[in-house]
Amino acid sequence: MSLDRDKRENRIARVVIIGGGFAGLWCTRALAKDRVAITLVDRCNHHLFQPLLYQVATAGLSAPDIAAPLRHVLRRQPNVSVQLAEVTGIDRSARRVLLDSGAALDYDYLLVASGAAHAYFGHDAWAAHAPGLKTLDDALEIRRRILTAFERAEAATDPAEADAWLHFAIVGGGPTGVELAGTLAEIARHTLRREFRRIDPARAKVRLIEAGSRVLSSFPESLSENARRQLERLGVEVATGNPVSMIDASGYVLAGQAVAAKTVLWAAGVAASRLGGLLAAPTDRAGRVLVDADLSVPGAPEIFVAGDLASLTQDGKPVPAVAPAAKQMGAHVARAIAARIRGESAPSFRYRDYGNLATIGRLAAVVDLRGLKFTGVMAWAFWLLAHVFFLIGFRNRMIVLTNWAWSYVSYQRGARVIFGASEPRRAKQAADETSG
Amino acid sequence: MSLDRDKRENRIARVVIIGGGFAGLWCTRALAKDRVAITLVDRCNHHLFQPLLYQVATAGLSAPDIAAPLRHVLRRQPNVSVQLAEVTGIDRSARRVLLDSGAALDYDYLLVASGAAHAYFGHDAWAAHAPGLKTLDDALEIRRRILTAFERAEAATDPAEADAWLHFAIVGGGPTGVELAGTLAEIARHTLRREFRRIDPARAKVRLIEAGSRVLSSFPESLSENARRQLERLGVEVATGNPVSMIDASGYVLAGQAVAAKTVLWAAGVAASRLGGLLAAPTDRAGRVLVDADLSVPGAPEIFVAGDLASLTQDGKPVPAVAPAAKQMGAHVARAIAARIRGESAPSFRYRDYGNLATIGRLAAVVDLRGLKFTGVMAWAFWLLAHVFFLIGFRNRMIVLTNWAWSYVSYQRGARVIFGASEPRRAKQAADETSG
Repeated sequence: MSLDRDKRENRIARVVIIGGGFAGLWCTRALAKDRVAITLVDRCNHHLFQPLLYQVATAGLSAPDIAAPLRHVLRRQPNVSVQLAEVTGIDRSARRVLLDSGAALDYDYLLVASGAAHAYFGHDAWAAHAPGLKTLDDALEIRRRILTAFERAEAATDPAEADAWLHFAIVGGGPTGVELAGTLAEIARHTLRREFRRIDPARAKVRLIEAGSRVLSSFPESLSENARRQLERLGVEVATGNPVSMIDASGYVLAGQAVAAKTVLWAAGVAASRLGGLLAAPTDRAGRVLVDADLSVPGAPEIFVAGDLASLTQDGKPVPAVAPAAKQMGAHVARAIAARIRGESAPSFRYRDYGNLATIGRLAAVVDLRGLKFTGVMAWAFWLLAHVFFLIGFRNRMIVLTNWAWSYVSYQRGARVIFGASEPRRAKQAADETSG
Repeated sequence: MSLDRDKRENRIARVVIIGGGFAGLWCTRALAKDRVAITLVDRCNHHLFQPLLYQVATAGLSAPDIAAPLRHVLRRQPNVSVQLAEVTGIDRSARRVLLDSGAALDYDYLLVASGAAHAYFGHDAWAAHAPGLKTLDDALEIRRRILTAFERAEAATDPAEADAWLHFAIVGGGPTGVELAGTLAEIARHTLRREFRRIDPARAKVRLIEAGSRVLSSFPESLSENARRQLERLGVEVATGNPVSMIDASGYVLAGQAVAAKTVLWAAGVAASRLGGLLAAPTDRAGRVLVDADLSVPGAPEIFVAGDLASLTQDGKPVPAVAPAAKQMGAHVARAIAARIRGESAPSFRYRDYGNLATIGRLAAVVDLRGLKFTGVMAWAFWLLAHVFFLIGFRNRMIVLTNWAWSYVSYQRGARVIFGASEPRRAKQAADETSG
């Protein structure tokens, strides 16, 4: 086996890590002291602090506030080279990753940590009308739609059209859906107050739609019920028990009823990134790679999968697709690679669940720390401190805290900018770009 | 005349203001106490603090930091209605402004203050290869090109290709060109230090190209010479006396010599916005409307033009296209409209020139206050304070100051985010958007 030969020759092992999210970045950092040559490949130039992405989408933060350039984060780690590229193929037999630039990266060990994308459960046509939230570009597109909707409502001459622009539906009652709905209600009721002359933004309807029986289903039932009450207090209508059966440009259908709504946001389905498919490994129904206990791919001990792309069951329950799990998996893969290099077998991964928290809106959140539950103001303060603590980079922390303090006092959102001009101009620019 | 009838009937005069820049916004505010019904039309939802736009382009500030939502700025002024729309026509005989939505706005008084756009002196094909800097979208595009260029240089296998990616040419030695060049040199020499493994970013060549004999030609000669020395100290090569004769995807031609350069930025030509043409009024060579002494259009006393779109000569010199002149013109038009409503004739506009300042880079600037000249650190500190003072909104001031303090100490840039992924993906998204 070539790994043994590498070891005998004391050659530095080549590690390729695909994805600079929590799993990939934590693995990279954990290998800082090892005799390895790491290439970290990402199609974005930044690590994204996804837990605050909804705040970019709702104009509370600027996109760069929650992004840290990967090169900068890793500048003092000499065994890493960062490459901005898209992966187009993985050749398992040649142990080689193919990039869109035409270049190829040979590896002795590979970590695939390319995360998740949206899934529309077979309704791909819905994507154009109900954008999801995974990247900064997604967030800016959602921000554009939300801010533009109020503008269109103000300009509308037909009252029914204005109502359709003021109907915001969020599909999916998980943490992202809850955050978006709570913040949207605050924008409509407080942020935009007095700014319009023909419409009253507070008239906007914010509806959170969850097909299951309760929101935040990963939390204990009492907290789901509490979250629902907090949402309703903020002005959100919570509709549980029925799935959306159709989405198009005019609105959506719920429980057989067609609703006119110009803004539908998708926070329901998550599927593995397409790189899972490139691996030619067994996957679960969502396309996530079924990994062995050490997070390696069955039959390929030199390939690991971590983060949202990995499917693993522990004590009969799936390891959740959350940031702490991704970080733990990334760090584990670093230990597993180091063990293999030493000629030892890799240890099994064990997820440590420290708790679960979700924010709902101003002074509203739920926290579940291994059974210690709290809600409301206390939970909100805990959520805020935890997120500032985990945000990468001193500057980002400072800016985010300043923004939050200002938003709290003023009810304002600091990033209310619609990029691009009117839609016809955007379409023209897009066409020019394609042909240029 | 209908204005007299309006006055007799004591009807509220309808004022339409096109453009929420310095001229339009200052006019709107100055009419706050008057009995007028103002409609402010802009194709963007924000007022843009253009003097700091180059900092967004060079990743020092986030786009929302220098933008203030027009609705929010004007929320407490009940005689204003803000409309997000593009103007498609001006019907002078019907006194009506046509919008892209199909709606029309009737006016008794009209201010056209739609500013300027880039001009490529008849070489429109250059636009695709040498973007200019007027809007936030322009700034994000330039930021994307600058950051991507270093990434491409790192990935290049051919040294000549890497050199082409590391050659940055800025065409035009006015304030914007000088700012871009100075900041780019700082990014290459300081910000990116230690972040790349194959290239040395400090090797990047930053060339500022000015067809005339000196940079900052609106300043006294001694300050131009000083600015040149400050630029050279920062690492910028200043090339004066020759125009660029060709720009394409591979580079540019200067003084008969073809230079391989993947990043060319345009800071040379400015033309009036196309709305000048819609007015059917006499214009100067740059397309700016030749206005009467009271800033009205000859033969149309109810139509005013202000800001970069207005062409006016005072004491034998053109009034410059700078923010203070635009603000003064905007406020003047408000006084002129108020005078006309009272049945009086409008006063003549008089530009008061308080001075001229330009920043060059870290600790480098030039200031000319009616003959009181200073340069270097003092000028830089003066520039900084003046710009924070004039920035709209308490939050923006706080965020910008925090960012600057952090950038000064760390040599870092806070907004180093490339939106969108690799170019093929961008093109695909653009195509999807066009067809969707």
